[in-house]
Amino acid sequence: MRIDPGLFQENERTAPADAAREFVEIGTTHLEVGGELPSVTVAYESWGTLNSDRSNAILVCHALTGDSHAIGWWERLIGPGKALDTDKFYIVATNCLGGCRGTTGPTSVHPDGSEYRCRFPIITVRDMVTVQKRAMESLGIDRLYAVAGGSMGGMQALDWTVAFPDAVDRAFITASCAAHSPMQIGFNEIVRQAILRDSAWKDGDYERPGPVAGLAVGRMVGHLSFLSEAALESKFGRRLQDKRTPDYHFGVEFEVESYLAHQGDKFTARFDANSLLYITRAIDYFELTSLVGSRSKYLFTSFVSDWLYPTHQSLKMHEMALAAGLASSHVEIDLPYGHDAFLLDGVQQARHLREFLAE
Amino acid sequence: MRIDPGLFQENERTAPADAAREFVEIGTTHLEVGGELPSVTVAYESWGTLNSDRSNAILVCHALTGDSHAIGWWERLIGPGKALDTDKFYIVATNCLGGCRGTTGPTSVHPDGSEYRCRFPIITVRDMVTVQKRAMESLGIDRLYAVAGGSMGGMQALDWTVAFPDAVDRAFITASCAAHSPMQIGFNEIVRQAILRDSAWKDGDYERPGPVAGLAVGRMVGHLSFLSEAALESKFGRRLQDKRTPDYHFGVEFEVESYLAHQGDKFTARFDANSLLYITRAIDYFELTSLVGSRSKYLFTSFVSDWLYPTHQSLKMHEMALAAGLASSHVEIDLPYGHDAFLLDGVQQARHLREFLAE
Repeated sequence: MRIDPGLFQENERTAPADAAREFVEIGTTHLEVGGELPSVTVAYESWGTLNSDRSNAILVCHALTGDSHAIGWWERLIGPGKALDTDKFYIVATNCLGGCRGTTGPTSVHPDGSEYRCRFPIITVRDMVTVQKRAMESLGIDRLYAVAGGSMGGMQALDWTVAFPDAVDRAFITASCAAHSPMQIGFNEIVRQAILRDSAWKDGDYERPGPVAGLAVGRMVGHLSFLSEAALESKFGRRLQDKRTPDYHFGVEFEVESYLAHQGDKFTARFDANSLLYITRAIDYFELTSLVGSRSKYLFTSFVSDWLYPTHQSLKMHEMALAAGLASSHVEIDLPYGHDAFLLDGVQQARHLREFLAE
Repeated sequence: MRIDPGLFQENERTAPADAAREFVEIGTTHLEVGGELPSVTVAYESWGTLNSDRSNAILVCHALTGDSHAIGWWERLIGPGKALDTDKFYIVATNCLGGCRGTTGPTSVHPDGSEYRCRFPIITVRDMVTVQKRAMESLGIDRLYAVAGGSMGGMQALDWTVAFPDAVDRAFITASCAAHSPMQIGFNEIVRQAILRDSAWKDGDYERPGPVAGLAVGRMVGHLSFLSEAALESKFGRRLQDKRTPDYHFGVEFEVESYLAHQGDKFTARFDANSLLYITRAIDYFELTSLVGSRSKYLFTSFVSDWLYPTHQSLKMHEMALAAGLASSHVEIDLPYGHDAFLLDGVQQARHLREFLAE
């Protein structure tokens, strides 16, 4: 399969500093596994217009390190005339609970006046979804035309359909799963250990920039797992970085090394290490074994080259939907971009999504 | 494919402290990319008896973090009546140049009386092989009946056939490649960055135990990449570690987390961080594009579930051998153990190896 190098641009267009984020307060929130947050703020962004009967809202849920700026990281799917058509739909995206991009998380201020850090309670995907639901209610949206998300966002979308079966009509879930495999838990655990074992982490009470070494190394692990072998071969091969012969040292020699360092270092400037601990934990705990009770229609997509969230996991969700007597379809898409394909594919994924939303 | 859990025992039986290692001094060694080592010691072990015409020697080359104790890590292949039959062959294994298990490396003493650490020169796979060749000469072995190795050991075996075409008759190369892909370089780079970014690394001049956090995290990355998704599923699934419900914290929850921590921590007690930097660098530089000049016969094996050293890399080596007019065969083995299969498989791999050695 030919790989279009033009698709390998930055795949994370998170919110610029001056993004038009809005905020909604949802008050005290009791958490699934215990504890409560006395006050929760939800950051969100929206595009398009909510119609008069409030029936055209689509909630978009972000992946692990995304944020409410869905029109950035899913620009190929969201916009006028695109699959998530802002001429037809009111598209809304929130930053998840536990995040560090506007919604309450470990960097938020505890009632005692200092940051939560690791006093923040353990949260689950169900908590993220419950917070989103209450945010939607605050916006006057009682029912979603659809909920959509990839990777961690797909877990939230799936969980919406069982947590609030009367509040969601359709779920589009791409490159995701109903429960992390030990491989996925393992990758997340390496990310956590890179942070937890960094002497600058200090039990979460770091002065910023904090455990940047661990955070960067963890991000490198993530980025390598987001790409396929073929994508890495096409993108970098064995090319050296700005030179024709190696320098024979432990600095950057190969382009792929430069890429990983760039991604790792850049990430430390925009993401909080504690937040990453909480969010990865939440998705490792996530486990849905049945969709009984849901009343949603489903569209699942997965990508041949995505070895991090492989097709059999999407098939399993699809089979769970069928077993619950629900309308469901699954499409495997043959693109070579690895897990990142769910962000990069604005063609095949989009076509199926458009048809699904038109049903 | 059914997975035999009995095969998931420790796959790294490296030399016990009282191992019967022997040592040979090979003197000054000039290195491929410049510099020299004024004195090189090679640690080796051997099993079986060298025959009178010294024609039954098989050199076994270890993988990244292995050592001369081949009868430990390849016990399923080496021994009386096994494929590497110690009743017929004289099996010899060395610790590689740059290692930390007896052969000269960064922990060795520089002529100025203190350890080399990162004053150690950059080494290559060719240097490892050259040092092995001179060690063999010191043992009175001018010609190898065969050279054998998996993963990094396979690279050495392959390089032997072009570096010393008159000194090797057969090469058995399993789960290896002629050049690292960017994915493989990327995994190694993450291991290096975990060490280099650990504040305890101190430009290599650490007091022991040194950068244990980075070294452990790097090892966790390694271990995850050595297993297949199916092997992880079979070995751990989503089982919790010694409990029925999660504790909801960042300590060990899942069995796979305990496994990774155990592997990571154990590794820091037996391996030197600088040594790992040098050896991973060496295999990332390794790149053979032709086997012209070799006079060896080849047997390549690879494993369906090995996504770290995938079959297409073994096929490429096989095609290089055929293109050079040499006898070569390649066998892909359908076992679910991931990259570790080359250590665990004492049946299929062994059968092909036995036939190859009998030709």
